[in-house]
Amino acid sequence: MRSTMQDVPLTVSRILAHGSTFHGSATVSTWTGDGVESRTFAEVGARAAQLAHALRDELGVTGDQRVATLMWNNTEHQEAYLAVPSMGAVLHTLNLRLPGHQLAFIVNHAADHVVLVNGSVLPLLAAVLPHLQPTLRHIVVVGPADPALLDAFSTAGIAVHDYEQLIADRPTSYPWPQDLDERSAAALCYTSGTTGDPKGVAYSHRSVYLHCMQVVSAESFAFNSRDKLLPVVPMFHVNAWGLPHAAFMVGTSILMPDRFLQPDHLARMIDREHPTVSGAVPTIWTGLLAELDRGSYDTSSLRRVVIGGSACPPSLMKAFEERHGIPLVHAWGMTETSPLGTVSLPPAGVSGEEEWAYRLTQGRFPSSVEPRLIGPDGTPLPFDGQSAGELEVRGPWIAGAYFGDDENGELSDKFSPDGWLRTGDVGTISPDGFLTLTDRAKDVIKSGGEWISSVELENQLMAHPAVLEAAVVAVPDEKWGERPLATVVLKPGATADFAELRAFLAERVASWQLPERWSLIEAVPKTSVGKFDKKVIRREYADGELKVAYLGKDGRDVS
Amino acid sequence: MRSTMQDVPLTVSRILAHGSTFHGSATVSTWTGDGVESRTFAEVGARAAQLAHALRDELGVTGDQRVATLMWNNTEHQEAYLAVPSMGAVLHTLNLRLPGHQLAFIVNHAADHVVLVNGSVLPLLAAVLPHLQPTLRHIVVVGPADPALLDAFSTAGIAVHDYEQLIADRPTSYPWPQDLDERSAAALCYTSGTTGDPKGVAYSHRSVYLHCMQVVSAESFAFNSRDKLLPVVPMFHVNAWGLPHAAFMVGTSILMPDRFLQPDHLARMIDREHPTVSGAVPTIWTGLLAELDRGSYDTSSLRRVVIGGSACPPSLMKAFEERHGIPLVHAWGMTETSPLGTVSLPPAGVSGEEEWAYRLTQGRFPSSVEPRLIGPDGTPLPFDGQSAGELEVRGPWIAGAYFGDDENGELSDKFSPDGWLRTGDVGTISPDGFLTLTDRAKDVIKSGGEWISSVELENQLMAHPAVLEAAVVAVPDEKWGERPLATVVLKPGATADFAELRAFLAERVASWQLPERWSLIEAVPKTSVGKFDKKVIRREYADGELKVAYLGKDGRDVS
Repeated sequence: MRSTMQDVPLTVSRILAHGSTFHGSATVSTWTGDGVESRTFAEVGARAAQLAHALRDELGVTGDQRVATLMWNNTEHQEAYLAVPSMGAVLHTLNLRLPGHQLAFIVNHAADHVVLVNGSVLPLLAAVLPHLQPTLRHIVVVGPADPALLDAFSTAGIAVHDYEQLIADRPTSYPWPQDLDERSAAALCYTSGTTGDPKGVAYSHRSVYLHCMQVVSAESFAFNSRDKLLPVVPMFHVNAWGLPHAAFMVGTSILMPDRFLQPDHLARMIDREHPTVSGAVPTIWTGLLAELDRGSYDTSSLRRVVIGGSACPPSLMKAFEERHGIPLVHAWGMTETSPLGTVSLPPAGVSGEEEWAYRLTQGRFPSSVEPRLIGPDGTPLPFDGQSAGELEVRGPWIAGAYFGDDENGELSDKFSPDGWLRTGDVGTISPDGFLTLTDRAKDVIKSGGEWISSVELENQLMAHPAVLEAAVVAVPDEKWGERPLATVVLKPGATADFAELRAFLAERVASWQLPERWSLIEAVPKTSVGKFDKKVIRREYADGELKVAYLGKDGRDVS
Repeated sequence: MRSTMQDVPLTVSRILAHGSTFHGSATVSTWTGDGVESRTFAEVGARAAQLAHALRDELGVTGDQRVATLMWNNTEHQEAYLAVPSMGAVLHTLNLRLPGHQLAFIVNHAADHVVLVNGSVLPLLAAVLPHLQPTLRHIVVVGPADPALLDAFSTAGIAVHDYEQLIADRPTSYPWPQDLDERSAAALCYTSGTTGDPKGVAYSHRSVYLHCMQVVSAESFAFNSRDKLLPVVPMFHVNAWGLPHAAFMVGTSILMPDRFLQPDHLARMIDREHPTVSGAVPTIWTGLLAELDRGSYDTSSLRRVVIGGSACPPSLMKAFEERHGIPLVHAWGMTETSPLGTVSLPPAGVSGEEEWAYRLTQGRFPSSVEPRLIGPDGTPLPFDGQSAGELEVRGPWIAGAYFGDDENGELSDKFSPDGWLRTGDVGTISPDGFLTLTDRAKDVIKSGGEWISSVELENQLMAHPAVLEAAVVAVPDEKWGERPLATVVLKPGATADFAELRAFLAERVASWQLPERWSLIEAVPKTSVGKFDKKVIRREYADGELKVAYLGKDGRDVS
């Protein structure tokens, strides 16, 4: 039986129309270094219409062509966030921090037609100019830029436009298409895996809209028309967690940090502009804590700061809360999950240490994100807070493929045959739906149908007074499939033999998890961003470059 | 360009699965008169599965057959709310307050297969037994009932079941269909217009789910897993405003009043069970106020009470807030709008009288409910807070037809040709999206392309010291299309001629709104529920039964 309800699509243009009319006096303010420049939502809506006219009438953007941004968090970026999807085109946010070859790959792979770019980061794009394919036909520069760079683009046959000149004098309303399929793409964001080429996730109008509704719910950011939002998380990072669209949906004023992400700037922004909610990654907030401890700032306006992107150290959460009265809320997500996966607000009736235990988990799943845990043997595990498996998720704002994958006729192995996203994260889920992550799936050792956490073994080993660093990797084993290899770096002058380290471990983990293979190394190989590079260790082991001792069940060296 | 997101439907079964697992320890409690009987969400979920098995295996409910409820707000009703839509059938809530002929019409029109009925209201159904068509094959009785009535159903060929016996010993999990179209019907609710047969609105899984997300947003009820909800609004009234499903979506415990809607019961429920949020119609809350003023009750747990269904008197809102510290929030909606249309939380930065002015409006539209005002000449009016037009709305949880209308090949005139719902309400919308209703469309007088508010004229007339009652209706006029006819009842012993009343009005309304036609009557005809019955006056005028004076521009009688 069909319902009798209207069939109205969920679209970004509805968010734009609503925010710019009924919340027309809310503001988007961009920090300039010592103050803000503000526009009302009504003005932002009018300028979004002008931008859409410019893109269509002047730059020839039609249909679902991609319009990219290489920009900081600022008002013009907000205008692009609203205009590009609303006109039916696809907003492609480019990550300012990517290495040049990945930036060029992504612009080409997405077939970007236009790039909107802040003048201050134009050198990043200019550096890869020789590698850009001719699908890129226009750049639109926001703010002052080096004229020599502009010339280089012109010479390469890419038209150069100034943002303000381009949109000036155009109509301040636009005939936004009313018949957009809510499942068509609204925005495109690439995730940079540690291996292989970056992969694109194409968010739909439907997924953006539903995700915004979740962002503003009481169980996540819970902001409304009486709030002011400080999105510190970059707008090129998973659509800034959906915050710019969500703020427009409910009339929350926005304070944009632009390029001023340094702790002293953030502290002054908060002190002077009184944001009430914010979202950021832990590293930024760690720097801010030191600044707040040092200086004298009024941060009393902040009532909720959501922390995601990577696990937040408990000490950081407690320091903010106890020393500055700022409640940090843990959240988990990824590019493929829009990103709101879990948010860690404790359940009713808990307090003290129990409350902290909940708050330090990755958080609780909302109704729209359905999880399952897949164990080492491929079967689902119970949500008992004990059974650890790889997390897979399903839901209307969860990716089910990567952009372009279907051209190859095959799906990435990031997706299960029945369409769930394999997150690559390993952890447990409590009976009341709180997720605790322990490992990346690629870092667990699959030993005889059980999983051994390399992170757990490393943490325990590094607790030994003689150990500076320890990295544990999986190596092939004829009997068990995989077994752990422990590589250890001793502190300068310290001495400890493997038998002693093994005995130390034996008091802390189950006996079947104890490594047989041990190797003393001078330093753990690291990636360019300082993470353990376990690929190198595995290759050195495979190539016989490591000197490895083999300890028997009694701990004696039997190599 | 297609998005790469998963295509996961929005369904009631997702709400059921989520609530009964991750919020399994939340509770549904039903008031018994002097305490509560409680079940956890996990138990309610298990019993919903048992009910679904019973309906399918024992009563033969298949596909999208209708399962009706004639019940108070209680735990078993919550179980039906979850089980029936989740299994793919359609939950049809029957209004306990309907006259018998309408109840029979609705059961027959919906082709209800089963009715779940509280024993205490079984007489209502038994009274219309001779008028029920054979599509009704089963009744399932919840709680004790009169055996003679049960026999009457059996005799009529309708099988009688006891709810607890029916669901006992069945499996506590159910293979809820995973491939339900989110646009298929989940629930059916009839609206009883003042004229014609009741009309059915068939809510979809999609509309129910989206509406739930709005209910829990910061701008409406804003409840979460740390709250306890008291739904006083009946579950047969627009799905209790979506509250039962929304509570399950976010883990809000529910306190069900069952049949105990008397003020002293409500006061004791609040005092003893500490609900934090509630929803009710003004009349119930008026009774409660008197009880709270009289007795000694702890109502400090209530942090938000949403009032809808009809306009809430300002004195009531102020009394609750000032005398009992309970904030009442105004909302507007109707059966056709699921019902959340507007909620009146004031915007940022207002206080005092300005804040009250906002709070006394019908409220602000959310992004998913798009309004327009249609003026007397059929064109849209600006949202300037001044221009009054008929409100039309569009959105994913707004009805676009009535159940069965398409069979006739024509849509009700409640829907515009482009699919918007004509609400039948007349009012203004402020630039910041706040709705103020002034009239029902059928009560405005369309005079020469302008509207005259009959309610406004009546209120002004009734302010005259000699006037007891006044009813103003539209009557045909050759020159202007329609003009107002003022019918007046004087207070016993009072005297006032029409010229004086007209002069009194002239000081208060625009001159072109002044009625020419006046009639002195003994009493305003009333409907069975005490409202002015203007149909009768219009007919009496048309039939020449009224003695009417005609006053010229100077106020002199020229009849």
